[in-house]
Amino acid sequence: MPNITVAFQGVSGAYSELAAADYFGKRVKTKPHVKFADVFRAVKAGRVTYGIIPIENSLAGSVHQNYDHCLEHRVWIIGEKKFRVSHSLIVNRGTKLGDIRRVYSHPQALAQCSTFIGKLKKAEAVSYFDTAASAKYVAEAGFKDAAAIASAQAAKHYGMQVLRSRVENKAENFTRFLILAKKPQYPKTSAGSKSSIVFALKNVPGALHKALSVFAIREIDLLKIESRPIPGSPWKYLFYLDFSGSLRDERCVLALEHLGEITTFIKILGSYRAG
Amino acid sequence: MPNITVAFQGVSGAYSELAAADYFGKRVKTKPHVKFADVFRAVKAGRVTYGIIPIENSLAGSVHQNYDHCLEHRVWIIGEKKFRVSHSLIVNRGTKLGDIRRVYSHPQALAQCSTFIGKLKKAEAVSYFDTAASAKYVAEAGFKDAAAIASAQAAKHYGMQVLRSRVENKAENFTRFLILAKKPQYPKTSAGSKSSIVFALKNVPGALHKALSVFAIREIDLLKIESRPIPGSPWKYLFYLDFSGSLRDERCVLALEHLGEITTFIKILGSYRAG
Repeated sequence: MPNITVAFQGVSGAYSELAAADYFGKRVKTKPHVKFADVFRAVKAGRVTYGIIPIENSLAGSVHQNYDHCLEHRVWIIGEKKFRVSHSLIVNRGTKLGDIRRVYSHPQALAQCSTFIGKLKKAEAVSYFDTAASAKYVAEAGFKDAAAIASAQAAKHYGMQVLRSRVENKAENFTRFLILAKKPQYPKTSAGSKSSIVFALKNVPGALHKALSVFAIREIDLLKIESRPIPGSPWKYLFYLDFSGSLRDERCVLALEHLGEITTFIKILGSYRAG
Repeated sequence: MPNITVAFQGVSGAYSELAAADYFGKRVKTKPHVKFADVFRAVKAGRVTYGIIPIENSLAGSVHQNYDHCLEHRVWIIGEKKFRVSHSLIVNRGTKLGDIRRVYSHPQALAQCSTFIGKLKKAEAVSYFDTAASAKYVAEAGFKDAAAIASAQAAKHYGMQVLRSRVENKAENFTRFLILAKKPQYPKTSAGSKSSIVFALKNVPGALHKALSVFAIREIDLLKIESRPIPGSPWKYLFYLDFSGSLRDERCVLALEHLGEITTFIKILGSYRAG
């Protein structure tokens, strides 16, 4: 796939870039972007073939801003990738464990490695806006008394050294990524497929229960529900729903028609193979 | 109420402190704490009478870490306060609008005031970990070329000046705060009351729909649903649910008994007057 390009947010060595290589194979060209919104825009404008964004971490929860972006930008979810996140403690060559006074990383990564960092008696955790960028920072500053927590690939990319691998508290650290494209690619069958929608409910009693009923009565499994505020309408919510099945399957199409009777708004985000 | 103390997270002038004054009246003594978890611990240990924490903003959404804290700490929700957040641009005395090169505040506050900041041609937005603390910082550093975005009360507290009021993009900016106590205080009647619970579902088809049915069949309104990951169980969720009614009302008690049939875990977080 020599001409395929994939937009991701972050710098080289970011987990999004590694997940893209896992999903597409290493021959695709990954393109770094500063903001998540930039990834959506690059896909929409056709400047890249695909985009990849994190939507949920198994320890930290949803990446809520990316739910908001899925609503705002007219792009389609065409796949997903569940990626095992493994953090490494990485340093400039020559730095030893006892030299470390500061450990830079994203606050979530620092929290996920709190047990390990706690054992480094002389070191304090310092928040940085991004994991891979914290590695880049330690490399470029040439620190001999600091480390970063990031991917092993970030160490390689910035000419650094992995001092310890798998420094996270819990092994069950997965991030689920969504693959974005300009056009939808609904799977032919429901087996192994899932679909994502977002909707707003009419102001009627038991509206959420009724909304979920349209799936229950058709034995369509709900996989995830996420609520987000509607700006300008305090204490009213948009619901993001993942359910099993493809939107080429009539059962799913009928469920959405039925859902339309109790919603003020529905947007289909995509139908795709489950990761 | 001279002996009542209320723990909040942040520094003097924080919106949490203002919301506490609004809820309890100005005679209560507010006690600043560094972390949200410290507020929960102070309540649990009886070091303060009450705690106050933000749970949701009408533009930015839920404060997810405080949902997690509600699960972890054995304290009770005994009230709520919906507080209108109004941001001010505050400076050290003598600083004029044209002098401002940097505007410090929490990233969410900066985002909420992006239109106003965008019109300050020479100024850039600088992220700070807290709104009131950004005011404190500008005051203590004595900057003549910087401003903070925080409450008008923060300006007063740190001897600063409000240069512009209501600099937020949208007027509908409310934060909902929860009042925490060591013991529950269930309201006598369901009218005007709400209850909050958290539960995990059995692994059965249509489990979430069935869970919501126990409320629907009793005509109990659902007010909010929020899902959070279960650490160590990727892609399984805890559900936080707010519903109308008091847990002194038999209808609500029966609904929770019924819910127990399809959950592996339920915790009651509290029953209280709706704000």
